[in-house]
Amino acid sequence: MPASKKARTHPPYELLYWPGIPGRGEFIRLVFEASGVSYKDVSNESKDGISAVLACKADDLTIDADGNPPAFAPPALRIPGEGKNGKTLVLYQTPSILAYLGDKLGLAGEDEAEKHWIMSHALTALDLNNEAHDTHHPVAVGKYYEDQKEEALKKATDVRTERIPKFFRFFERVLKGNEDGQGQYLVGGKLSYADTTLWHVLNGLKFAFPKELEAREKEFPLLFGTFYLRVQEHKGLKEYLASGRRQPYSMGIFRHYPELDRQ
Amino acid sequence: MPASKKARTHPPYELLYWPGIPGRGEFIRLVFEASGVSYKDVSNESKDGISAVLACKADDLTIDADGNPPAFAPPALRIPGEGKNGKTLVLYQTPSILAYLGDKLGLAGEDEAEKHWIMSHALTALDLNNEAHDTHHPVAVGKYYEDQKEEALKKATDVRTERIPKFFRFFERVLKGNEDGQGQYLVGGKLSYADTTLWHVLNGLKFAFPKELEAREKEFPLLFGTFYLRVQEHKGLKEYLASGRRQPYSMGIFRHYPELDRQ
Repeated sequence: MPASKKARTHPPYELLYWPGIPGRGEFIRLVFEASGVSYKDVSNESKDGISAVLACKADDLTIDADGNPPAFAPPALRIPGEGKNGKTLVLYQTPSILAYLGDKLGLAGEDEAEKHWIMSHALTALDLNNEAHDTHHPVAVGKYYEDQKEEALKKATDVRTERIPKFFRFFERVLKGNEDGQGQYLVGGKLSYADTTLWHVLNGLKFAFPKELEAREKEFPLLFGTFYLRVQEHKGLKEYLASGRRQPYSMGIFRHYPELDRQ
Repeated sequence: MPASKKARTHPPYELLYWPGIPGRGEFIRLVFEASGVSYKDVSNESKDGISAVLACKADDLTIDADGNPPAFAPPALRIPGEGKNGKTLVLYQTPSILAYLGDKLGLAGEDEAEKHWIMSHALTALDLNNEAHDTHHPVAVGKYYEDQKEEALKKATDVRTERIPKFFRFFERVLKGNEDGQGQYLVGGKLSYADTTLWHVLNGLKFAFPKELEAREKEFPLLFGTFYLRVQEHKGLKEYLASGRRQPYSMGIFRHYPELDRQ
């Protein structure tokens, strides 16, 4: 059985992220699911998993018992055996974790040029993810949406009418320019973490702004007619997306407030 | 002369960024200056340099003559000879360029763990950089500050009172936990691109919010009493910071609007 053999060659990866939402943890989950490599989604799979998430970012942590720095915020990835002197390595920041796993799981391209283009495109998709978050929290990250509704309407209008089309036009051009990808891959001729990352951002935007996205999709035939549809059919991803393991959108980065969508 | 010999072993790096401001290009300039490796700051050093910046992000570019994808936005880095089949490689996105140059210029740590911690900390400093930008552009990236002053005051208040202290507490803890760094390096016992990146963000915040920073500095003795002072004395950086090559702050990411500072 190649699948289980493959799993045995990898360390027991542990994702540390908030339970119950896709959030930024989803970008990490997707690379595991797309590559068929097992991982433990600690806070969703363990009764007291949240304590491990809180521990890696604790306000008094300067260095952990294995020599790792604190995480500024989840997601973090624990990798037993891969740290200094065979200890547990802890990484944080979504793009840093994706770069690490991209190399290990074969989702980071065929050479150095592809590796950095993949990182660049993933970072760009994550910038759009951040802008989507800011549509409901434009002026105070720690306060409620209800405390900044007026500003949120302005921000969401700008993101929907200016920023989303700008990002979509960019990715449509990247797909067009990458002939080897035939519209389904951003870089080269195979799936990378740039693809899974962009896919999730598009999926989240469709949830948050369904009217806006429906009105715009036809302007971007490669992005929505080929890329989006093919990525979600990829082996591993298709099964995951249909499974109960996938967390529903709720009060995380992508939120559906009808008043912020196209009217 | 070791310096010129070192320079000859590197390709002729070309930074593509807007002229006349530090901006996100500054993070790239600092790693070259800290390592003593020469580079061409195209738009500041060539009469028509801006056209190269505009070309790499042109609205109709799908792939360039050397097989590179378009850049979403500057900064971009052109590296003649390092692309596929000896062609010119073009990278974009600040963290991706820093990761590439970090490896090439010896500013990315001693092993894989350090390499990823450096990337993670640099990304965190760049997140703070983005939040500093959003203090004057909270609801519409493409409009003037004067069109969003009311929202900017709310955002700046939140960033000054909640976000800046949270980031500073984090980096103070990282410095404290990294004994090998003796307060002057975030990771290990030598300078990395995480250090130069955080230094520039601190420097920019001191320009943008001088009263806020002055009031807070003493709460973070390692960050401001050791790290900030030592990094700017580092060979290469000290000479650069005193030189006319360094662009002054003006209407970029870090702007000094007295009404947004602590009153």
